[in-house]
Amino acid sequence: MLGAQHMRAVTFQAPGEIRVDDLPEPEPIAADDAIVSVEATGICGSDLHIFHGRVAVEQGFVIGHEFVGTVTAAGDGVTEVSAGDRVLGCFCAACGTCFFCRRGEYVKCDHGQVFGHGSTLGNLPGAQADLVRVPHANLTLRRVPGGMSDDVALFAGDVMGTAYHAIVPAGMKPGDSVAVLGLGPVGLCAVQVARAGGAAQVLAVDSVEERLRMAEALGAVPVHLDEDPGGAVKRVTDRRGVDVAVEAVGHPSALDMACRMARKAGTVSVIGVFAERAEVHMGVVWIKSLRLVTGQANVIAHVDAVLDMLAHGVLDPAPLVTHHMGLEDAPEAYAVYDRREALKIVLSP
Amino acid sequence: MLGAQHMRAVTFQAPGEIRVDDLPEPEPIAADDAIVSVEATGICGSDLHIFHGRVAVEQGFVIGHEFVGTVTAAGDGVTEVSAGDRVLGCFCAACGTCFFCRRGEYVKCDHGQVFGHGSTLGNLPGAQADLVRVPHANLTLRRVPGGMSDDVALFAGDVMGTAYHAIVPAGMKPGDSVAVLGLGPVGLCAVQVARAGGAAQVLAVDSVEERLRMAEALGAVPVHLDEDPGGAVKRVTDRRGVDVAVEAVGHPSALDMACRMARKAGTVSVIGVFAERAEVHMGVVWIKSLRLVTGQANVIAHVDAVLDMLAHGVLDPAPLVTHHMGLEDAPEAYAVYDRREALKIVLSP
Amino acid sequence: MLGAQHMRAVTFQAPGEIRVDDLPEPEPIAADDAIVSVEATGICGSDLHIFHGRVAVEQGFVIGHEFVGTVTAAGDGVTEVSAGDRVLGCFCAACGTCFFCRRGEYVKCDHGQVFGHGSTLGNLPGAQADLVRVPHANLTLRRVPGGMSDDVALFAGDVMGTAYHAIVPAGMKPGDSVAVLGLGPVGLCAVQVARAGGAAQVLAVDSVEERLRMAEALGAVPVHLDEDPGGAVKRVTDRRGVDVAVEAVGHPSALDMACRMARKAGTVSVIGVFAERAEVHMGVVWIKSLRLVTGQANVIAHVDAVLDMLAHGVLDPAPLVTHHMGLEDAPEAYAVYDRREALKIVLSP
Amino acid sequence: MLGAQHMRAVTFQAPGEIRVDDLPEPEPIAADDAIVSVEATGICGSDLHIFHGRVAVEQGFVIGHEFVGTVTAAGDGVTEVSAGDRVLGCFCAACGTCFFCRRGEYVKCDHGQVFGHGSTLGNLPGAQADLVRVPHANLTLRRVPGGMSDDVALFAGDVMGTAYHAIVPAGMKPGDSVAVLGLGPVGLCAVQVARAGGAAQVLAVDSVEERLRMAEALGAVPVHLDEDPGGAVKRVTDRRGVDVAVEAVGHPSALDMACRMARKAGTVSVIGVFAERAEVHMGVVWIKSLRLVTGQANVIAHVDAVLDMLAHGVLDPAPLVTHHMGLEDAPEAYAVYDRREALKIVLSP
Repeated sequence: MLGAQHMRAVTFQAPGEIRVDDLPEPEPIAADDAIVSVEATGICGSDLHIFHGRVAVEQGFVIGHEFVGTVTAAGDGVTEVSAGDRVLGCFCAACGTCFFCRRGEYVKCDHGQVFGHGSTLGNLPGAQADLVRVPHANLTLRRVPGGMSDDVALFAGDVMGTAYHAIVPAGMKPGDSVAVLGLGPVGLCAVQVARAGGAAQVLAVDSVEERLRMAEALGAVPVHLDEDPGGAVKRVTDRRGVDVAVEAVGHPSALDMACRMARKAGTVSVIGVFAERAEVHMGVVWIKSLRLVTGQANVIAHVDAVLDMLAHGVLDPAPLVTHHMGLEDAPEAYAVYDRREALKIVLSP
Repeated sequence: MLGAQHMRAVTFQAPGEIRVDDLPEPEPIAADDAIVSVEATGICGSDLHIFHGRVAVEQGFVIGHEFVGTVTAAGDGVTEVSAGDRVLGCFCAACGTCFFCRRGEYVKCDHGQVFGHGSTLGNLPGAQADLVRVPHANLTLRRVPGGMSDDVALFAGDVMGTAYHAIVPAGMKPGDSVAVLGLGPVGLCAVQVARAGGAAQVLAVDSVEERLRMAEALGAVPVHLDEDPGGAVKRVTDRRGVDVAVEAVGHPSALDMACRMARKAGTVSVIGVFAERAEVHMGVVWIKSLRLVTGQANVIAHVDAVLDMLAHGVLDPAPLVTHHMGLEDAPEAYAVYDRREALKIVLSP
Repeated sequence: MLGAQHMRAVTFQAPGEIRVDDLPEPEPIAADDAIVSVEATGICGSDLHIFHGRVAVEQGFVIGHEFVGTVTAAGDGVTEVSAGDRVLGCFCAACGTCFFCRRGEYVKCDHGQVFGHGSTLGNLPGAQADLVRVPHANLTLRRVPGGMSDDVALFAGDVMGTAYHAIVPAGMKPGDSVAVLGLGPVGLCAVQVARAGGAAQVLAVDSVEERLRMAEALGAVPVHLDEDPGGAVKRVTDRRGVDVAVEAVGHPSALDMACRMARKAGTVSVIGVFAERAEVHMGVVWIKSLRLVTGQANVIAHVDAVLDMLAHGVLDPAPLVTHHMGLEDAPEAYAVYDRREALKIVLSP
Repeated sequence: MLGAQHMRAVTFQAPGEIRVDDLPEPEPIAADDAIVSVEATGICGSDLHIFHGRVAVEQGFVIGHEFVGTVTAAGDGVTEVSAGDRVLGCFCAACGTCFFCRRGEYVKCDHGQVFGHGSTLGNLPGAQADLVRVPHANLTLRRVPGGMSDDVALFAGDVMGTAYHAIVPAGMKPGDSVAVLGLGPVGLCAVQVARAGGAAQVLAVDSVEERLRMAEALGAVPVHLDEDPGGAVKRVTDRRGVDVAVEAVGHPSALDMACRMARKAGTVSVIGVFAERAEVHMGVVWIKSLRLVTGQANVIAHVDAVLDMLAHGVLDPAPLVTHHMGLEDAPEAYAVYDRREALKIVLSP
C-alpha cells in the first residue's frame, strides 16, 4: 500500500509452519492504545501450542505475547507511560472497568485480549514483530526499572507473573512446604517464587535431568519422576504431605499426583493448562479437604510485585534464557524450541 | 456384669437393620472426657449411609452423632463445661493440639474421632443412646444458650455447622449471588446461612417440590432441576453465573452443574460427600479460573458463631424438624427416614 | 458566553451561606467523561462540614457528591454506561490505572477527585445541580437496577457504601457481635449492613432517642450514651467485648470507647472522619492486640455488592430519608439539616 | 525441706537486683504439664523491663521465658512430646480450648500464662533455672528439629516468633517494601523474616551503627535515624511510602514515624510494647487509610512455621547471639545486657 510503513512480524501459517512476514505497521485505535517498538520478545510454551495447531489461530496472524520495548506512540488516554519509555507488556490486555476488572480479576476481563492468540482470544496481533499495538496501555504496560535487562524484564509480564500467581494468591505462607510438578520455565520460576516467598522446603519433580539440576540450583530438592515422588514428599514432611502442591504440567496424571502430594486441608495450585476434558479423583480431594485454585495467571495484578522482586534481585530468571536469536530466525527458533533443546528463547527484532 | 449400669443405645446390625440394645453405660477414660445424658439426638443423612451399609460399621456399634443433653460426669481436665450443664455436641472430636488442630483444622485432626462411625473413624460409640462419652469435651461440647430448644441446638454441631462451612469459610461475601444444589437439610440450612450472611440472591435447586417450597420460604429463588437451572442462573446474574455455587448432593452431575453455574473466578463449595472415585471437568474449571473448596465441615471451628446466630434468631432450623420420636422407635424412625418421608427426625431417649 | 446553556447549581459562598446559582452547563472533557442530568441529590454530613467552613472550598464552587440521574452525553471511552441510562454516582472518581487503583484501593487513587469538595480534593464541581460532569464514568457510575427508587439508589454510592466499608472489608463475619457508635446516616446504615451480613448482635450507641429507636427498628440493641455502653457490651458478650466496634462519629472520645468495647484481638473500624490531630490510647490498643482499620470508604469497590443488596431488599435505607425538597430550596434544606431536624434530605432539581 | 530436690534459679529481688537462688524443683501439677531440664535460656528485652522494675514481679519470683532443654517428666495428658525429647518452649502457655484459643488467638488465652512474669501474667515461674514446669505442654513445647543448635532453637519460641508475627500475619506479601524501626533482636529478626518472605526492599532504621551494619548484612538498606528516614523511604518507593512499616521500639515517636512512612492504604505493624498511655496522630492515620495491627506476638500459632524456616536455613538468628554465659553468671549477664553491650545473651545451666 502506497506510503504505508511496513514491519516484520512472525505469523502462523499452518501447523508446524510459521513465517516472518512484511506487514503494515500498527497504529493506535483507541485513546488508551500505545505502540511499542519491540526490542525483545520471548517464545513461550503456549506459542508452541499454536505452532502445533492445538490452539487454533488464523493463517497469517501475528503471534507472540512476551515483549520488552520502547513506546513510540500513545493515545491521549495513556497516562501511566509516555512515548520514549522503555516498557514491558503483560501477555494480555484488560479493560480495567468491567465487573471482573473492578474485582481485580483482570485475566477474566469481559473484554480481555491475549496477544497473538487469534480471534478466539480477542483478535489482538502478537508481539513477535517490530512493533506491537497495546490496548489499555495504562494497565498492560509497565516501565522497566532502570538497569534491568531485556531478558529479565521479559519474564515479568508472562512466565514469572504466572509463577507468582501459582504461589502467592494460592496462599503459600513463609514456612510452608511446596511441591512443584513440572519444571518448564513456569515450574522453575515457581520454584524461585516459592523460595523467595519463604518456603521452608520446595520439592521439584520432573523427568528431565538438567531441569532437575536447575531446580536444585534454585534451592529445591530435585525429585525424579521415577523415584517415588510421593515417598519423597512423605519423607520431608513428616509423612503429612506438602502445604501447597503446584501442578505446572497441564496433565491429568500430574494433577492426580498433586492431589496425592498435598496434605490434608492443603492447596493444589493448578497453573498447568487444562483446556480439554480431564478428570480429577474427587474422592481423594474431598476426603483430604483440599482446596483447588485454578486458571490462567492474573498477571496484571501481580506484575508490580514481580517487577520489584526482579529489580532487587529477589527473583532472577536470567539463567533460564538459553538462546538469543534474531526475529528473522523465528522459524529456526520455533524448530529448536519444538525439539526441546531450549528452555527460553529470546528474539530480538 | 454384676452391678454395671445399663442404658439403651441404637446399634447397627446389618445393612437395613438397626436395633435398640441394652449396653453398659460409658465412663470417662481420659481426663478431658465427659459423659452426657442425651436428651435429643438426630438422624442424619450420613446415618443413612451406615444404615445402607455404604459406610462400613461394626455389627453392634452404637450410631448417631448429633446430640443435646446434660453433662453427668467430667474428668479433671474438663474446664469449659461442668456436670449439670446443658450442652450440645459437635459430630466429631479433635485433640486440639496436633499439627492440624493448631491450625484450626479440627476436622482433619490426626487423632480425630467421629461419633457413631465405627473403627474407621476413631472407634467412638455414637450418641443415639441414653448416655454418650465425649472425648476432648472442652472442644467437642458447648453450653446451650439459655432458652434454646433441643431441636435448634441439635443443628449447631452438625447440619447448621456444615451449612456455615459451605458458605462462610468458602468466601461468600454480603452482596454475592449463590446457588445451592441439593435441598436436603444441609442444603436448606446453606440457603439460610447464605441469606443470613447477606447474599443478594440465592438460587435453590432440587427436584422435590416441598423442598423447593421450603427453600422459597427461607428466601431463595426455587429452581426445579428440570427447569433449566443454568438458564435461571444466567437470568438472575446478568448472564455471568453465581459468585458461589454450593454442591450439597455429593454426585458428579451436581458437581458438574455447580462448576457450570459459577461465574468466572468464582467459587465452588463442595460440601456434598465424595468418598468414591468421581470426576470433574477440569477444562471448564480451569478456563473459568474456578476455586474449589471441599471436604467435611470444620464444625468445631464454626459452632460458636452458629450458636450465636441461632440464639439471636438470625438462623432458625426449627421448621426443618418434621418428626419427633422416642429412642425406642429408632428402627421405625430409620425406616421413615429411608423412605424420604422426613426431613429431620429427632429422637428423645 | 453567547449561546452557552445554563443550569442551576448549589454553590458555597461563605461559612453558613450557600446559594443556588446560574452556571454554564458542564461538557465532557476527557474521552471517559459523562454528563449526568441529576434527578436526585442528597445532602450529607460532609456537606455540612463545607457549609460550616470546616472543610475549605472556594467561593462559588458547586457542592454535593450524592446523585442519581440520567446520562445525557458520554465520551468515546465510556463503555459501561450509555446516554439514556439511569445511573447513580459514587462520591468520588478514580482513574482505574494508578498504583492504588490497580490494587483496588480506588479511594486512594493518585488522581482521585471528590465531587463538590473544591480544589483540595480534585477540583471537581459537585452534583447539587441540574447537570454534573462525571470523570472516569466507567468506574464512577453504575446503572440503577430496574425498579429502584431514587432515594434508595442515592445511598449506594455514598452512605450505604460507606457503611458496607465499615463492616465487610473490616472483617465482620456471620455470627459476630458488633457495636456501632454514632447513629447518623452512616451509623444507621452500618447497623443494617451488620445485621444483613449475619451479625448475631448489634449494639447501637447514641444520645439521640429517635436515632436509637430507628436503630432498634433495624434490629440493633439500642444503648443510650448515658447508660453505661461499656456495661451493655459486657452483658451481651459474656464480658468479652464485641468482635467489631465501629467508630462512626469522628471524635477521640468515641474512638476511645470503641477501643474499650472491642474484645481482645478484635477490630476497631474507624469510619468516622479524623482530619485533625487526635489521640488514641495505645496502651489499651496494644494490650488487647486490637486491629484498627481506618479511612474513607472505598465505595467504588463496594458499590456493586451494595446495589445488589439494595435491589433485593437485603438493605433498605428508605426509612432514613426524612425530607424531600427542590434544588431551589437548597438554602433552606441546609438550614434544616444544620439544625439537625433531618436525617437525610434529598433534593430534586 | 527434707528430701525435696533443689535447683538453681534466677530470681528477681529488687529493681536492679537479680540473684541465683536455690529453690525446690518443680513438679507436674496438671495432666498436661511437663518438666523440662533447661539447657539454654535467653535474656530478652522484657526481662530488662522486670530488672528495672518497670514490669512488677514479686520478690523471689523466677524469671526468664526463653528456653531449650529436655523433657524429664510429662503428665498423662502430654501426647505431643515425651520424656527424653529435646524441646523448645514458647514464651507463654495457652489452654487451647477457650474462646480465644479456639480462634487460634493463643496469646490472648483467657487462662494464658507468661513464663517468669509474676502473678500479673499467670504466676508461672520462669525458665532461667535448671528446671521449668511447662503447662499445656502439648501446645507450649515443640521438638527441636535434628541438628538445630540451642542458640537457634531458642529464638523460635520468642524473638523470631515475634518477628514472624510482625511481618506475616500483618499481611506482608512477596514484592512488598518494608520499613523496620528499631533494630534490637526483634527488629533484626523482622528484617530477616521480611527478606525471607520476599520483600523487595527492607529499610532498617536505628541510631546504633553496629545494628545498622548487621541489618545491612541481613539484606536491609540501613538508615540512620539522623539521616532523614522519611526521605529515604520516599526515595526507594517512588515517593509512595512502604507497604508495611514495623514499629519495633514501643515509643510514640517511632509509632508516629511508622505512620508517616507507610503508604496510603498501607499497614503499620506495632510489635513494640505499649503498656502505658501513648498517642498516635489519628488524622494522619485516617487520611492515609492505614491499618494498624498491634499486640504481643501469637507465637504458639507461628512456631511451627518458624521452626521449619530455621531448620532449613531460611532464617538464621545465630549471628545475633553475642554472649554465652553460665546460669550462675546471671547477675553479671543482666548487668552486661543493661549496659547494652550485648544483643542476645544465652545462659547455660
